Amino acid sequence: MPVEAVLLAQGNELTTGLTTDTNSSWLAGRLWGLGIDVRRIITAPDRVDDLVEIVAQAADLAPIVVATGGLGPTRDDLTAEAVGRAFGRRCRLQPEALQWIEARFAAMGRPMADSNRKQACLPDGCTPLENRWGTAPGFAIDAPSGARLYFLPGVPSEMKPMFEAHVEPDLRRRADLDPPHLHTIRVLGVPESTLEELVRAVERPGLEIGFRAHAPEVQVKLRFAPGVPEAERRATVEAARQRIGWRAFGVDCGDLAEVTGHLLGERGQTLSLAESCTAGRLAAWVASVPGASAWLLEGAVVYSNAAKVRTCGVLPETLDRYGAVSEPVARQLARGIRERAGATWGIGITGIAGPGGGTPDKPVGTVHIALAGPGGVEDHRRFRFPGDRQRVQTFAAGSGLAMLYKRLVTDQK
Amino acid sequence: MPVEAVLLAQGNELTTGLTTDTNSSWLAGRLWGLGIDVRRIITAPDRVDDLVEIVAQAADLAPIVVATGGLGPTRDDLTAEAVGRAFGRRCRLQPEALQWIEARFAAMGRPMADSNRKQACLPDGCTPLENRWGTAPGFAIDAPSGARLYFLPGVPSEMKPMFEAHVEPDLRRRADLDPPHLHTIRVLGVPESTLEELVRAVERPGLEIGFRAHAPEVQVKLRFAPGVPEAERRATVEAARQRIGWRAFGVDCGDLAEVTGHLLGERGQTLSLAESCTAGRLAAWVASVPGASAWLLEGAVVYSNAAKVRTCGVLPETLDRYGAVSEPVARQLARGIRERAGATWGIGITGIAGPGGGTPDKPVGTVHIALAGPGGVEDHRRFRFPGDRQRVQTFAAGSGLAMLYKRLVTDQK
Repeated sequence: MPVEAVLLAQGNELTTGLTTDTNSSWLAGRLWGLGIDVRRIITAPDRVDDLVEIVAQAADLAPIVVATGGLGPTRDDLTAEAVGRAFGRRCRLQPEALQWIEARFAAMGRPMADSNRKQACLPDGCTPLENRWGTAPGFAIDAPSGARLYFLPGVPSEMKPMFEAHVEPDLRRRADLDPPHLHTIRVLGVPESTLEELVRAVERPGLEIGFRAHAPEVQVKLRFAPGVPEAERRATVEAARQRIGWRAFGVDCGDLAEVTGHLLGERGQTLSLAESCTAGRLAAWVASVPGASAWLLEGAVVYSNAAKVRTCGVLPETLDRYGAVSEPVARQLARGIRERAGATWGIGITGIAGPGGGTPDKPVGTVHIALAGPGGVEDHRRFRFPGDRQRVQTFAAGSGLAMLYKRLVTDQK
Repeated sequence: MPVEAVLLAQGNELTTGLTTDTNSSWLAGRLWGLGIDVRRIITAPDRVDDLVEIVAQAADLAPIVVATGGLGPTRDDLTAEAVGRAFGRRCRLQPEALQWIEARFAAMGRPMADSNRKQACLPDGCTPLENRWGTAPGFAIDAPSGARLYFLPGVPSEMKPMFEAHVEPDLRRRADLDPPHLHTIRVLGVPESTLEELVRAVERPGLEIGFRAHAPEVQVKLRFAPGVPEAERRATVEAARQRIGWRAFGVDCGDLAEVTGHLLGERGQTLSLAESCTAGRLAAWVASVPGASAWLLEGAVVYSNAAKVRTCGVLPETLDRYGAVSEPVARQLARGIRERAGATWGIGITGIAGPGGGTPDKPVGTVHIALAGPGGVEDHRRFRFPGDRQRVQTFAAGSGLAMLYKRLVTDQK
């Protein structure tokens, strides 16, 4: 049985939607890596009764509690008081904590406000945790239930180093930690429900399988219990990958832009893009990878027909005859941008992202994508993507890159 | 007393840190706007016992519960079962929900997997909620405590429209809601701490002010108590907007791409873009607005120097003398793409997004942006953006568009 933990997050900015709680997902990931399962994440506003309630509840739910927020100098910051009330401890000025705060203000050359003294008022019996990245000390405390609770500031740039300096070493000293192994298969172009059916065949004891949709890709997460040997893990992951096929573009790797970019980089090949309905989305994605200038030569956002003709050499008569959203135009875009840029590969994308512009013949979501390479136009596909404008654009960009990736890995010449 | 709500979020991807829960902050913001205070956000893994526990706990804590996740076709998706157990209801195949799923697969031209039938198995006595954005129907159910619970899918692009189509209207029908008035001032290019000082002057009873950073913009949220008359609200919002200046680009409006695009559309003006370090990010943003084809003519992702010369007419000697990241190159990019596209406006962006490529003279984050228009190159600015590659790209794209917006609103000719 893995050790369990509860995360607490406090603050009106979280319960009114002004701030997204990124602390808890960061902490959950770090605890997971230590073999600690998060059983609950509980967020409450800055009201002392609610805080007392969630602190007491958390200490009963799991032996480890990590809380963020509520340690600042303002009247909203009620954590120490709430912890004191939850466990029947008085809050007192802790000389050590006060010294840290005073030293920090002295180092910044700023006078310390009276309100900052409050930050050194901590529950009896706690262990103050030094904050070298801000003014608010944290603290650790043992609850009557036996649970150990850690309280950290809510500012991520203070919370993260304090977790690493104080909490993680304390947790690692626990003898009962035994970290599991996580592997991620990254997939583009297979719906989650199909993936689940494909991957079911590799199920075995000591393996948990989860899926994460992160448009346009889906990730298959395989979590192996601590005892599973590496060779068995590798074989299982490989079996799952083979069942999915080439659309599983990597294991424990970056996204498709990174994987494809590095393939191009290794081969000294280059890429050019002619985008109509995706309007630069694919170029921006390819360029999100550091070092992309080694393989991305040029992109053309050819939104107007005139731009398609001028920049990618699309023939006006082709536009007249087939319309801008058509196979011949996608082919001419791919070939045209490839020649213009002098690149190894050219991708042409033209479609109807919506919400307007659809016809019975070419409904919203219709996208034509062509791939040009050393052998001329080597691939063309017609898609019909569901969803809103942004989703159509995202999946069109993903599918264009997937066509190039497929060409790169299925023919290794 | 405002009405209270509890948010539930379900999924191992949340409790293992694979995904940040953005659904709950979005929902918290929407409820806040309706005058509903979120008292708790509770996240649990995909374990049926835990889900039963949090569903029951939530129904006791508040009269409104909105839950996300766990409605998919996989065995991880346990929400309906957990709700059934929490409230002593059997789950049964709901013909109406099954019809929705079948119709959706038929429309996509894809066969429906057996696992998708499970998505139509919902607790007795619930009201199925149609999902026109994905396959998973949601449902609403009344708990024995009297609380009303809404269950929505975890995919944000399905969850958000379902909240708007089903949950919000249902909540508004509640007689005891007395929604406050929420106004949002949207700002680009002013740090949050500066905004806070600027806006402090308009504070008054019955007004809560919050700030939401959503790169590259910051939103100032003004929540007025239900009783504040419209004229007073308008005057307060206007006073805050005037204190911020032109960088407050709108109130209760779309993002800067939408506002600027509609300004161009109204005037029959057009836009062209030459992007180096942002690599299509600005074009994709401009094109995210439905109808953008009316104002966006062409974009050039001129990542290589050869592309800058070929497509935007940058002079090779300018590149040699000043380097690609320089004011003269930004000016030539803006002028070159404007002439090429025959557009009213041209924006040229060149910079160092990092992590590599910085020099003492031109550190990472250095970006030059120029705006060309009827009067030639009408504006140029040099920026030094902090943060990682993605942040530099995001702020560079935002700043380029802000320069055009400023030009459009400060000179109405």
